[in-house]
Amino acid sequence: MWGIIATWRMAHDGIVAASEQLKNSGKAGDAAETCIKMVEDYPYYKSVGYGGLPNEEGILEMDAAYMDGDTFKIGGVAGIVDVANPVSVARSLSDHKFNSFRVGNGATKFAQLEGFERKNMMTERSKKMYDLRLEEMKEKGLSAYDGHDTIGAVSLDQSGSMVAATSSSGLFMKKAGRVGDSPLSGSGFYVDSEIGGAAATGLGEDLMKGCLSYEIVRLMGEGMHPQEAADKAMYSFHHKLTKRYGKAGAFSLVAMNNKGDWGVATNVEFTFSVANDKEEPAIYIAQMGDDDKTIIEPITQEWLDAYEKRIKTPIDQLGK
Amino acid sequence: MWGIIATWRMAHDGIVAASEQLKNSGKAGDAAETCIKMVEDYPYYKSVGYGGLPNEEGILEMDAAYMDGDTFKIGGVAGIVDVANPVSVARSLSDHKFNSFRVGNGATKFAQLEGFERKNMMTERSKKMYDLRLEEMKEKGLSAYDGHDTIGAVSLDQSGSMVAATSSSGLFMKKAGRVGDSPLSGSGFYVDSEIGGAAATGLGEDLMKGCLSYEIVRLMGEGMHPQEAADKAMYSFHHKLTKRYGKAGAFSLVAMNNKGDWGVATNVEFTFSVANDKEEPAIYIAQMGDDDKTIIEPITQEWLDAYEKRIKTPIDQLGK
Repeated sequence: MWGIIATWRMAHDGIVAASEQLKNSGKAGDAAETCIKMVEDYPYYKSVGYGGLPNEEGILEMDAAYMDGDTFKIGGVAGIVDVANPVSVARSLSDHKFNSFRVGNGATKFAQLEGFERKNMMTERSKKMYDLRLEEMKEKGLSAYDGHDTIGAVSLDQSGSMVAATSSSGLFMKKAGRVGDSPLSGSGFYVDSEIGGAAATGLGEDLMKGCLSYEIVRLMGEGMHPQEAADKAMYSFHHKLTKRYGKAGAFSLVAMNNKGDWGVATNVEFTFSVANDKEEPAIYIAQMGDDDKTIIEPITQEWLDAYEKRIKTPIDQLGK
Repeated sequence: MWGIIATWRMAHDGIVAASEQLKNSGKAGDAAETCIKMVEDYPYYKSVGYGGLPNEEGILEMDAAYMDGDTFKIGGVAGIVDVANPVSVARSLSDHKFNSFRVGNGATKFAQLEGFERKNMMTERSKKMYDLRLEEMKEKGLSAYDGHDTIGAVSLDQSGSMVAATSSSGLFMKKAGRVGDSPLSGSGFYVDSEIGGAAATGLGEDLMKGCLSYEIVRLMGEGMHPQEAADKAMYSFHHKLTKRYGKAGAFSLVAMNNKGDWGVATNVEFTFSVANDKEEPAIYIAQMGDDDKTIIEPITQEWLDAYEKRIKTPIDQLGK
């Protein structure tokens, strides 16, 4: 038995590669890291790693985490810059008993001292998008916080070990040092190999109000199927936050238990990719259901074509 | 009905002041902030605010958070420097829909732009302790990570609103940018005014493996008394982590429900202070019990005298 699930269509190539590893007795940690590194490395995904979108000062600050479900060890970075693969830095930190969550300059310093690949993570495309947004804000006074598509993955290997990991460049145009849920245990991710794991994407400021990843794992521990656990945790908090805070931001969560069964809950349109020993890697699209049950359908070729076209819009056509 | 509970003996003067506010219809947020600011301001407490102990580079980096139990809004800072009251910065950030958790230079920049008091938080005493530790490490090669006494408070006001807040300078001699559980929702703190709140102190790296503050609130929401909820959450995770990770770090948690009933769980020797509409402010000492029930006793005058003498050791006597 093995499996891996991750947030957004962008995860799919990584899911395909990681599932080959898991099929061939690869480790859960290697599979999760492979999946996320592929997203970090791909220049057309604008919310994770290389080609991500910067903060309001034009600095691309990134957050990432790694959690081992066998031992609960966690590594995390927040506000790290100029490093090719934040998830690998987080994984390395998870081996430290102390100082395993590092932020700002201290995180970047650790990555440099340890020899992680240094890289200017801005591309010509992300620079152009930043310039366009600055102009737009000057003209229309927009304060637009869109774009918070974190990659979050949960993997299970044939030995029964599970890992959860995340990586994100956070909100486009965020304030310097802003951190969302991605590197925060319980909110952005959680995993227990004896139960299962979950990972989140959406508005970090609201996700950390609910500790939804922890709650989904806990509910799976009570015996719920991942789909039931994800729907119950996400929708009940969506309703609670709407009532108490006035509005709930975007929440999307993926979950997998230690048998490779999976589930997803969302309150927006949300794509994801999943594979296990019974199901070939596939992309799905999910939406909020009326009865607090997420609606999940296979992705269409039409959707994929439109997505491909959108992310690869020629740079001179951006903003037109 | 009203109440406030906070971690460590150091919280007591703040608990006395905050309980006067709550008695006179003060707000839960003001009471929690008052309590924590008094600890931040007092130069003899070496793990919070002014007079705190620095990281290995000699920089005093601080973490703090504030959560409103009515709306779930959260503000947090991590790795902030040169600001007199990190908890007040966190409270101010909790009013922001976006960018409410800021780390590193971005957190310090926010505090400066918003006019929060700028202050060199190192004292002659903390400089001396840093110098002594450097010498000691040179001589004995010690890698001593002691001193992680976060102030964490949970307050309930007469209108039924609840707040949780924390402040810490983290591990003495931590690596630059190291962050513990204090500013992390669910691990360092959590509160829901319809249920209750909890806050933690101890080894942040291990506390964030368990999301214990969230779990205690959740168990109180199932109807458990705060003492029962704290013991159940803390001891079951202590045992689980000991089995799976090999060892559990120091965990101490305080909890209060929305009736002002309180509870405490710990796996070390732990002092705390509490007051409510039925009980005068008092300091207690807690210890791990054999049967997964925390033992709580009133503090003795002898303990208090020894503590006072220890924290006020003349500077020229330190290390002797």
